[in-house]
Amino acid sequence: MEALPKLEVCLSPALLHLYDTTDTIAVIIDVFRATSTIAAALHNGANCVIPVASVAECIALGNDIEDSITAGERDGKIAEGLKHGNSPSEYPAEFIKGKTLVLTTTNGTRLLHMVKDASAIITGSFVNLTAVCDYLISQKKNVLLGCAAWKDKFNLEDTLFAGAVVNRVKDHFEINCDSARAANYLYEYSAKGDAISFLRDSSHYKRLSAYGLQKDMEYCATEDVHPVVPILNGRDLEVHKP
Amino acid sequence: MEALPKLEVCLSPALLHLYDTTDTIAVIIDVFRATSTIAAALHNGANCVIPVASVAECIALGNDIEDSITAGERDGKIAEGLKHGNSPSEYPAEFIKGKTLVLTTTNGTRLLHMVKDASAIITGSFVNLTAVCDYLISQKKNVLLGCAAWKDKFNLEDTLFAGAVVNRVKDHFEINCDSARAANYLYEYSAKGDAISFLRDSSHYKRLSAYGLQKDMEYCATEDVHPVVPILNGRDLEVHKP
Repeated sequence: MEALPKLEVCLSPALLHLYDTTDTIAVIIDVFRATSTIAAALHNGANCVIPVASVAECIALGNDIEDSITAGERDGKIAEGLKHGNSPSEYPAEFIKGKTLVLTTTNGTRLLHMVKDASAIITGSFVNLTAVCDYLISQKKNVLLGCAAWKDKFNLEDTLFAGAVVNRVKDHFEINCDSARAANYLYEYSAKGDAISFLRDSSHYKRLSAYGLQKDMEYCATEDVHPVVPILNGRDLEVHKP
Repeated sequence: MEALPKLEVCLSPALLHLYDTTDTIAVIIDVFRATSTIAAALHNGANCVIPVASVAECIALGNDIEDSITAGERDGKIAEGLKHGNSPSEYPAEFIKGKTLVLTTTNGTRLLHMVKDASAIITGSFVNLTAVCDYLISQKKNVLLGCAAWKDKFNLEDTLFAGAVVNRVKDHFEINCDSARAANYLYEYSAKGDAISFLRDSSHYKRLSAYGLQKDMEYCATEDVHPVVPILNGRDLEVHKP
């Protein structure tokens, strides 16, 4: 029997150095809300999404690129100099189709740029759960699920999504990683498929609720409403074409 | 109503810098096996346990201190130059009573020395679960539960113990920490009180099983067989006297 590829989960960017990402598919996870918004924008017809680290870079790229939208929030508000926010609901087809979304976020875009040597970098959230799982199974390569976390602190929503992936793909991988086991147990404990009920007691839910973003978070926790696999090609996230 | 003290869980020494330990009780957790062995040795009458970082330091202190026992393993074997191992079963009363145990371990002793400014540093494992919980409730101070992990990687057994503590003390603390929530959910998922069944699928259980240490791990996961609170006093861990 052929050896199965390996799957591991990294719970925080501050632990990333402990994992070898060479010849590995890295899945960047920032459920609330970067990787949910990325899937939504691409599924709704954006040409691509360019993740950038800073507001300044976002503005500069927005000036350079025709038909671009600059987006990003700091402390729950659209950052000064940008035009749009981090909510997936801001990017329906009639608005985003054919455009380039230049996006900066606190955690997700940072982790995207930290993973350097992976063989492929994709993004995942509940909105594209099945598409991500199908992709990972089809590639037969080692996988690292990378949680964006919150300023390096472990968070529940990204870990829960990692657990949802582990739960679905585990027969196709060799898993000897306690983070993956814990994530899977959390997903099983959470009564699967009802992520948002479980996540209402998370730090990030409480933080974003103070900005009135409950509907946004419910949307981000809804499975498979944006069935695409965003994959990094140079600086751009594009829809993976099998 | 008076504000409750805060409780947080740090899942890896590599995340310790994210937490403020000032005016906080730090609980060092290394279930397999440092903090289980520390509780066993003290409960069985050791004068004190001196946790040290290196084998060389262990040998030097052993030479200096009368009636001392040097102990420590590397890769599942007693380290060269030391006399005893990391197993709690090696320290029955008839052997350890009145002696000083100088102990070096891979993860637990390292974390003990990393926490610098805490108001108190104690050690916890299933063998002294209730004693630790009673102590934390009685002190009415902020608490950080620090998992020793495995070479900075998240592990299941230390997190499960943190969850057992959270589960028991949660009404006495303000908990807005996703790591604490996740640890508590894992403990609830694990069917409480049967830690070892749950931990048989952990990385560390598999690693130590290869050395034939199953009985040791069962012992480390047994609740309340060594009801003492080891507390750091200078360089020495001693039994806390209320």
